[in-house]
Amino acid sequence: MNEYLKLQDLLRTNKMLIDDAILNFLPTNTDTKEIQTLYEMMRDYPSRGGKGLRGSICLLWCELFGGNKDSAIVAAAGLELFQNWILIHDDIEDGSEMRRGLPALHRKFGVELAINAGDALHGKMWELLLTNQKIAGAQLTLDLLSEFSKMLDETTEGQQMELSWNFGNDWNIKEKDYLLMVTKKAAWYTCITPSKLGVLLSGTKNTNGRPQVLNLQSTMKKIENFGAHLGIAFQIVDDVLNLTADESKYGKEILGDLYEGKRTLMLIHLLETVSEDRRREIIEILSKPRQCKTADEIKFVFNLMNESGSIEYAREVASTHSELAMKLFDEITSSQSSVNLQVRDQTRNLLEYLTSRDY
Amino acid sequence: MNEYLKLQDLLRTNKMLIDDAILNFLPTNTDTKEIQTLYEMMRDYPSRGGKGLRGSICLLWCELFGGNKDSAIVAAAGLELFQNWILIHDDIEDGSEMRRGLPALHRKFGVELAINAGDALHGKMWELLLTNQKIAGAQLTLDLLSEFSKMLDETTEGQQMELSWNFGNDWNIKEKDYLLMVTKKAAWYTCITPSKLGVLLSGTKNTNGRPQVLNLQSTMKKIENFGAHLGIAFQIVDDVLNLTADESKYGKEILGDLYEGKRTLMLIHLLETVSEDRRREIIEILSKPRQCKTADEIKFVFNLMNESGSIEYAREVASTHSELAMKLFDEITSSQSSVNLQVRDQTRNLLEYLTSRDY
Repeated sequence: MNEYLKLQDLLRTNKMLIDDAILNFLPTNTDTKEIQTLYEMMRDYPSRGGKGLRGSICLLWCELFGGNKDSAIVAAAGLELFQNWILIHDDIEDGSEMRRGLPALHRKFGVELAINAGDALHGKMWELLLTNQKIAGAQLTLDLLSEFSKMLDETTEGQQMELSWNFGNDWNIKEKDYLLMVTKKAAWYTCITPSKLGVLLSGTKNTNGRPQVLNLQSTMKKIENFGAHLGIAFQIVDDVLNLTADESKYGKEILGDLYEGKRTLMLIHLLETVSEDRRREIIEILSKPRQCKTADEIKFVFNLMNESGSIEYAREVASTHSELAMKLFDEITSSQSSVNLQVRDQTRNLLEYLTSRDY
Repeated sequence: MNEYLKLQDLLRTNKMLIDDAILNFLPTNTDTKEIQTLYEMMRDYPSRGGKGLRGSICLLWCELFGGNKDSAIVAAAGLELFQNWILIHDDIEDGSEMRRGLPALHRKFGVELAINAGDALHGKMWELLLTNQKIAGAQLTLDLLSEFSKMLDETTEGQQMELSWNFGNDWNIKEKDYLLMVTKKAAWYTCITPSKLGVLLSGTKNTNGRPQVLNLQSTMKKIENFGAHLGIAFQIVDDVLNLTADESKYGKEILGDLYEGKRTLMLIHLLETVSEDRRREIIEILSKPRQCKTADEIKFVFNLMNESGSIEYAREVASTHSELAMKLFDEITSSQSSVNLQVRDQTRNLLEYLTSRDY
């Protein structure tokens, strides 16, 4: 089996473990029909598939430092629940129509019920995390909860930045603003927190319950740095895929970001590269409400991105951040004697896949 | 000073302590202007006043069993944060225009940013509760978090019931459905959880950290029962005030519930009392979109409620539940030797005020 197939196999195995933890935890039956619908709404996104990348990252970092995968499953399931409830709200906030190949939850049930179902699922995330007490003890459980709380702070701040640009019709976004937004909105919940949670849980089965990590605090700082670079690369690749992926695999609408007027690195590059007249023209198109944009207009902007080398530029920036991340990963893992070398290679494969995937 | 003034004084004092805890905790300054707006949005509802009833209930139950008010302030502040973030989302879900005399948050900033600000404030609630570790220790902090998680389950289930009736244009609501909805949507977060949190925290300053309460588990069950009755009475009184209060004190729109088509006990009684033709007529009016209802139509339904004794009936049901609650309160407090008698009288005053207030 080649490395890619081995990785897909690993992701599938992990996803099954995590899905079981989630779907066994979420409530199923009640004799009140309205609440029955709520339970179905809560199970909807978690049942739709997805790759379970964040959960797998958490499991791998736990095993990396000699921990047992079982110890991290609840935290990994909490991460996936986080993604699911916040996507319910994001889909409303971003006006997204589709999620994982099916209509977004608010398109099926209306905005009002979907906001409430997102809140209910958010509550279930904390409730699930509280069950960690049994395997991780009281103090470690509280430490994990603090990581989730920090992750939520960062994610909502990132979302606020992006929404403000959209609703404020603000097109003067600099690359550094974009990088800050992406670090907050994507890197924290995709890379930084999953990695840190895994490390924290790696010591659960040891006698002292502490991770077998030298210089834990400075290692955690390095992981934040690593995760920020990796998360930036991940998001840029995700945005590039929105322009270039094979729609049948992608699950979302190709070029949807242009219809949404999303401030991507490609767009920022394009607006900084073209003439003042062209810039005005692009902004005029992208400022229109979604339903007023024509396919020709979108194609026009997409072609300009190609011609101006904006897509190529974004790929290069992603690649630079990805390399920085991998360098930090090697630095972190080579300085720790407790590192499991086989898991290190598996983790490296997954991390490289994050920024080289084609859907 | 008469009892009413003493109570207002106590509420004011408690509210100041709780507000301080909230406003000192929420973030203030950042050099990113978009995030600055998020911080302002998060501070908006908590800065608008309100009576702080739920926080005060928590503080009083803590003192009732010999606890120190200081021990319960973080939990009380968490309860008020809960109310504030969930109101941000409720106001969107219910299409409310006003909150505490000012435009609802989504009317000021748009639905998208308001959903996100609600989530950010929700996150801050858990973050604030985690600071309880310092005063309450790890295990008690986790127990408090479980109470919050249970409260959120109940509240979102209640909200789902009510929203489903509205959006499903369902008018066949029975009194028992209404009572279940109100117990979930209002009683848990207004009465049950605030009381239980106070009790749990009453032992914080004792050597063993456990509340000085005989038969803790069965007392907690009784408190749930007490809180359900009181919460039902509280909500019915609230709904009656929406029809009858003095608008200058009330802070929300008088008769707003009729414009919203809210299923109140008065409406359920009315629909069960009138003739089939009249019933159809009322439903036809209330089913219209808010902006299509005329003042005359609303007045017509209101007058029918008066004529059919529906308002009087609702007041009686509220009064029955209030009496049951007070009976349980007396039972709980008279069987416990650790009860502080002065605090018992203060608490009784507050509880009676909840269902006898005129705004």
